[in-house]
Amino acid sequence: MSEYVFDTKAAAKFSDEKYQKVNLYESHRLFCDVYCLLPGQSQRAHVHNDEDKIYHALTGTCDVQIGDVTQPLPPGHTAIAPAGVEHAITNNSNEPATVLAVMAPHPRLRKD
Amino acid sequence: MSEYVFDTKAAAKFSDEKYQKVNLYESHRLFCDVYCLLPGQSQRAHVHNDEDKIYHALTGTCDVQIGDVTQPLPPGHTAIAPAGVEHAITNNSNEPATVLAVMAPHPRLRKD
Repeated sequence: MSEYVFDTKAAAKFSDEKYQKVNLYESHRLFCDVYCLLPGQSQRAHVHNDEDKIYHALTGTCDVQIGDVTQPLPPGHTAIAPAGVEHAITNNSNEPATVLAVMAPHPRLRKD
Repeated sequence: MSEYVFDTKAAAKFSDEKYQKVNLYESHRLFCDVYCLLPGQSQRAHVHNDEDKIYHALTGTCDVQIGDVTQPLPPGHTAIAPAGVEHAITNNSNEPATVLAVMAPHPRLRKD
């Protein structure tokens, strides 16, 4: 089995304190995380000036904000926050939720 | 509804001729596609010297090759091909398959 293949369901970890970010892979080019949100938890609205962000819903349905629009993100749906566009994700449901989060380039490891 | 939120199932398009790439978003930082593979179709083994690639299985189960290892990629599993590592994906099953494919930076639009 490859060290580069991940079961996102097995990787998920939750905490009552706050939503969890489980990193699968990172380089200067991108990071790929599983975000794990219990009911009521959220990643607050923020902007990355020079990075694009992808949220892809794995399990559960969060509400995603992209710019001025907030809408449900059910499993199999993908949201893109281009650089400069405010975004947030909140689990307003009664079930745990997991989201694949990808950002490029990596905001901390980027070389340019 | 946001122009940046996509239903990957609705976006999928298949062709008997070859696997299809449906682009959801692209910039110089990344592209995000839905790859749509009928039984027997594949993206052949190849290498990107300066880009990282992510395959995330949406529906159906393809076999993914990362370096020297080939293994099934069932829905909810994520495979990473770091820059320089050969990779391929093949639908050896009897059902159509869709895969979220992300590459960073964009191999054609990149600025550096």
